[in-house]
Amino acid sequence: MSTIFTKIINGEIPCYKIAENDDYFAFLDINPMAKGHTLVVTKAEVDYIINLTEEQTKGLFAFVRRIALALKKVVPCKTVSIFVLGIDVPHTHVHLIPFNNIEDVNFKKPALKLSKEEFEHIAQQISANVEL
Amino acid sequence: MSTIFTKIINGEIPCYKIAENDDYFAFLDINPMAKGHTLVVTKAEVDYIINLTEEQTKGLFAFVRRIALALKKVVPCKTVSIFVLGIDVPHTHVHLIPFNNIEDVNFKKPALKLSKEEFEHIAQQISANVEL
Repeated sequence: MSTIFTKIINGEIPCYKIAENDDYFAFLDINPMAKGHTLVVTKAEVDYIINLTEEQTKGLFAFVRRIALALKKVVPCKTVSIFVLGIDVPHTHVHLIPFNNIEDVNFKKPALKLSKEEFEHIAQQISANVEL
Repeated sequence: MSTIFTKIINGEIPCYKIAENDDYFAFLDINPMAKGHTLVVTKAEVDYIINLTEEQTKGLFAFVRRIALALKKVVPCKTVSIFVLGIDVPHTHVHLIPFNNIEDVNFKKPALKLSKEEFEHIAQQISANVEL
């Protein structure tokens, strides 16, 4: 049984895709805490981040860094916060959230509401700025 | 003017040290969200994580992974959550928090109170399990 992220990677579930390489895949979180909130997932179905190998860990965060740099070009922010919670889906995923103030990373506030067109526009802009 | 983390790295401010290598330094957060809450900092004074080079990013998370594996051996948990918020101190630091449930990563709850002896014991145990 594939995880929801594997279904997204395989195109069985639609997403606002940003970028991918052989091992990692980036797309917009559809329940964003801030505009541009992105998820990076491993293509390998590894449950928790601590169960990645050292090489997988290095590759993941090198990819996260490139996505974060593109994100910062598109969404004005001081930095990009990076979260690996380890809950919800047993398939390693990293949250990238443009950070301006502490409320941007309050997991308890309601998700931002964006239209399909806004999601598509943000994903396209970030994607255009990714240097892989 | 050195940051508080540089002063900790240099021994000018005491800490409950776990491990270090040439580029990274791990110690217990003195305001822990959960038992074993650890900080990993870069020895280089780089303000935000997105301003690390790719090599620095890879090295940082390879080091974080080794500390997280040691932490999981000492503190029973499902996984270790990893947070890079980007606030408080303009010197890149990563939070490692043993994760069992969502309250373990609630930044708004009061810090756990531990005695000096408890901090020392936890730091020593994690340190003994780090494979660098």
